Amino acid sequence: MSLAMGSVGENRLLSRWWQTLSRHPAQANLLHETDCELLPIEGTDDLLALTIDTVAEEVALGFYREPETIGWMGATVSLSDLAATGATPIGLLASVTLPRAADASYQDGVARGLEAACRAAGTHVLGGDTNFAEQAAIATVAVGRVPRDRVLRRVGCSAGDLLYATGPLGAGGSCAARALLPIPAEVFCERDYRPRARIAEARLLSGFASACMDTSDGLVATLDQLGRLNGVGFVIERPLLEILEERSRRLAALFDLDPLLFFAQHHGEFELVFTVPAARREGFEEHARQAGLSPLFLGRALPEAILRFAGPPPREVDGARIRNLLEEVGGDLGRYLVELGQIVSG
Amino acid sequence: MSLAMGSVGENRLLSRWWQTLSRHPAQANLLHETDCELLPIEGTDDLLALTIDTVAEEVALGFYREPETIGWMGATVSLSDLAATGATPIGLLASVTLPRAADASYQDGVARGLEAACRAAGTHVLGGDTNFAEQAAIATVAVGRVPRDRVLRRVGCSAGDLLYATGPLGAGGSCAARALLPIPAEVFCERDYRPRARIAEARLLSGFASACMDTSDGLVATLDQLGRLNGVGFVIERPLLEILEERSRRLAALFDLDPLLFFAQHHGEFELVFTVPAARREGFEEHARQAGLSPLFLGRALPEAILRFAGPPPREVDGARIRNLLEEVGGDLGRYLVELGQIVSG
Repeated sequence: MSLAMGSVGENRLLSRWWQTLSRHPAQANLLHETDCELLPIEGTDDLLALTIDTVAEEVALGFYREPETIGWMGATVSLSDLAATGATPIGLLASVTLPRAADASYQDGVARGLEAACRAAGTHVLGGDTNFAEQAAIATVAVGRVPRDRVLRRVGCSAGDLLYATGPLGAGGSCAARALLPIPAEVFCERDYRPRARIAEARLLSGFASACMDTSDGLVATLDQLGRLNGVGFVIERPLLEILEERSRRLAALFDLDPLLFFAQHHGEFELVFTVPAARREGFEEHARQAGLSPLFLGRALPEAILRFAGPPPREVDGARIRNLLEEVGGDLGRYLVELGQIVSG
Repeated sequence: MSLAMGSVGENRLLSRWWQTLSRHPAQANLLHETDCELLPIEGTDDLLALTIDTVAEEVALGFYREPETIGWMGATVSLSDLAATGATPIGLLASVTLPRAADASYQDGVARGLEAACRAAGTHVLGGDTNFAEQAAIATVAVGRVPRDRVLRRVGCSAGDLLYATGPLGAGGSCAARALLPIPAEVFCERDYRPRARIAEARLLSGFASACMDTSDGLVATLDQLGRLNGVGFVIERPLLEILEERSRRLAALFDLDPLLFFAQHHGEFELVFTVPAARREGFEEHARQAGLSPLFLGRALPEAILRFAGPPPREVDGARIRNLLEEVGGDLGRYLVELGQIVSG
């Protein structure tokens, strides 16, 4: 593992598994390189895309309180990984942990959330298992398929490439802020947080995007990881309020919050962030327009390993420090937000 | 859901999901019908086999204390489901929850267990995620592939069919007994419990087995479920001690335990239990001999929905009552074993 990758706790943890585990000889992705694991489907030219993801910490931290949210997000976290590799969903498996104290209507709520998120992505739950514990959790596996030459990867971008998102950002930060701030429901309530896996959008990026990753952990963590993997940095040239989604903008105004806090929070909105070589800008924007896609221009990749925001006010942030912060403060959300505020204010 | 299926809490829980979830139109298995979910692989004649399974309760109950066991069993529970459908593994995904208090050597232990169980099944971990909680847990997904005409299913057996297992039974009960009894390590220790997914054996059953299921929850639960699904019952004609695996036999002798307790325990040994039509007995046994398989004859399917053991002593047991017992006693293992003893003694 490179020094750059290893300065983030999560990367070290992931790499440690592979000191013992042997890689599948036919696996079509390297560690950290894609949001899904990829394997050839023998007898075809396609790759099988597989990912497993767990929603547990978000419940423990009080971000998700309603069973529908747990079901919706359980499906979305995995489906979004399929999107970020350009894959089309085949189906989903769910391992649901129900709270021991919950009644049957709780199970029904999780089921409604799962079903709604799957239908939004044009797929179905295939099966799963159910367990019981003190607290709800859900692990899901999304299975998809992608032609070998249409895979989107996290690696491949260069300094000078343009940076886009599939939509406005910050709703993940707003959802997390509800655990600490008395946010009026009409400004941002739990049901306002229903990110959609960007399956259809991703398939339009193939042939244009030089790198792609979903913002499951927020914009800052995503750019930090893309930067480390590609040996580049990024500058967000757009004014922060222009890329902040609308309800989060109102929330920022109400509590006088720095917009950058919404992007630095370790809880994202599952948009895709991707780069396009500058020479392909016109072709891409024309292609997007014809397909009905409205990519949000953010900025560009830099040769130096920095993460800069043009502002206002202009500043640079330490991505590794932000990504390691929640673990550093032992999961204390109050301390996390205070220290995050200090970091982003420079 | 049929009345017969609904009298088991676990079946009711599983069926409740499907009051809300929609089934995939191409799914090649019905609910409860197979140990894996099956979907056509477009462009081929094969089916994709998918399963997710979680090891958590076994840790909470004190059955698994070593990280290697958690890794080994995490992989085996899912790989065994592939075996029970006749599928060949493509790979495994693992979502591991590490105890917050654990050091890095704990992660390495889980990794060694995962790796060893995957290599034993001729496959690899493809990827996964890591979480933290008070207690260790592992959810794994096994992905496999099976020709459409070689799928093994839980349904298809008739009264008169012969009943076999891929090997001696009871080690799951012995492993569980360690949580309550002071069992000397030389009689049965945690490392003696390393069930292997019966991948190769299963592929030899295709064309002969009329129904197949793994004994993940012990022999009694497996026969009860097979009986409900097929509208049959079973009689175990072999003397109980002849089908009890060797170390469990010594354990039974040491503590003067009823051998049936080992089969009734809701914790199995991941052998395959399968039926063969009586008219195919000779052909199957010859085929097994040539392939080096040593199936263990157990008994046969009955037209009545009963579960009978020829003994000694001869008796019938109430499968639904046994399967619902652990939930009924609220997970109290001491009460569970006392009441289980009363049920099996008639």
